[in-house]
Amino acid sequence: MPHIELADDLPGITAGFAFRPETAKPMRELAHILLHTSGNEGFSSRDRELIASFVSSRNSCYFCQTSHGAAAAHLNGGDASLVDAVCGNFRDAPVSGKLKALLAIAEQVQIDGKRVTHELVEDARKHGATDVDIHDTVLIAAAFSMYNRYVDGLATWQPRDAAMYAQMGKRMAEEGYSAPSVNP
Amino acid sequence: MPHIELADDLPGITAGFAFRPETAKPMRELAHILLHTSGNEGFSSRDRELIASFVSSRNSCYFCQTSHGAAAAHLNGGDASLVDAVCGNFRDAPVSGKLKALLAIAEQVQIDGKRVTHELVEDARKHGATDVDIHDTVLIAAAFSMYNRYVDGLATWQPRDAAMYAQMGKRMAEEGYSAPSVNP
Repeated sequence: MPHIELADDLPGITAGFAFRPETAKPMRELAHILLHTSGNEGFSSRDRELIASFVSSRNSCYFCQTSHGAAAAHLNGGDASLVDAVCGNFRDAPVSGKLKALLAIAEQVQIDGKRVTHELVEDARKHGATDVDIHDTVLIAAAFSMYNRYVDGLATWQPRDAAMYAQMGKRMAEEGYSAPSVNP
Repeated sequence: MPHIELADDLPGITAGFAFRPETAKPMRELAHILLHTSGNEGFSSRDRELIASFVSSRNSCYFCQTSHGAAAAHLNGGDASLVDAVCGNFRDAPVSGKLKALLAIAEQVQIDGKRVTHELVEDARKHGATDVDIHDTVLIAAAFSMYNRYVDGLATWQPRDAAMYAQMGKRMAEEGYSAPSVNP
């Protein structure tokens, strides 16, 4: 049961967004920039969604982990095994050295921003990360520290329905987050 | 030393905002709605700034705790002792039962949204909290879990200059956060 009066049929963050459209707008915009429009070959939307799912897994936020995992899987040709590998133990996952280094930064931000060390940042640079890549990694991990707490702190409805998440992930991956029908 | 190339003379979050204006815009807007424009007699800007400073103190984020503490003090007739009392032990602070109940919710969200219990929410309601008050409390605590990690995760410059924070807090309290010169 949600802690406040939320629409019955809206899962996860979409219920909070419908309850308070004023705050939903900037929250959607931030996700849209970080995950969708900023993606490029050097730091793709797939990799950004993987970081979002990974941070959500560390915060045990089922809704965010599963929906962003589904978006990452869609952007990975429909193969979800990569998401499981990253959320399981990213150091052994079949991803680039650069993404592993960025995940290592996100891993610390999820606990406390002060745990990001000069060494972790240097390692990311050595693997080709730019200042914007490092900035965006810190902010994706920070932003999901917000989204996860919002989704769980309102006790939103988080259905266990794989098909629903697959459909949601496809829409998120293809359309991004700025439209009111799409959730971060 | 910041982890990425940030402007030398900009403290805390303002340096991250100047580095990436695209993400700064929704981050400012969210703070503006939650802390500035939504304040009313039932849940004032002063009380919202107190929650922001309190959550930042639990995250040991000096810049956010001090600047939002200064904003709360400005909205409290210039008296900063209330901020210290709330960040010290809010249960003994001279604030309303309603604000104490909302702080008790924020206290759990700072750790993990799933720690917010039905009992904590019921207690806030008994003290007159509305659904919007509860929603905004959860989201303020969640949002500062982001702002704090962003400020610390980039290793921004966080000067120890009481006069600077007092001036910043006054500006934040009076103008809010939507103008690019003002930080959350």
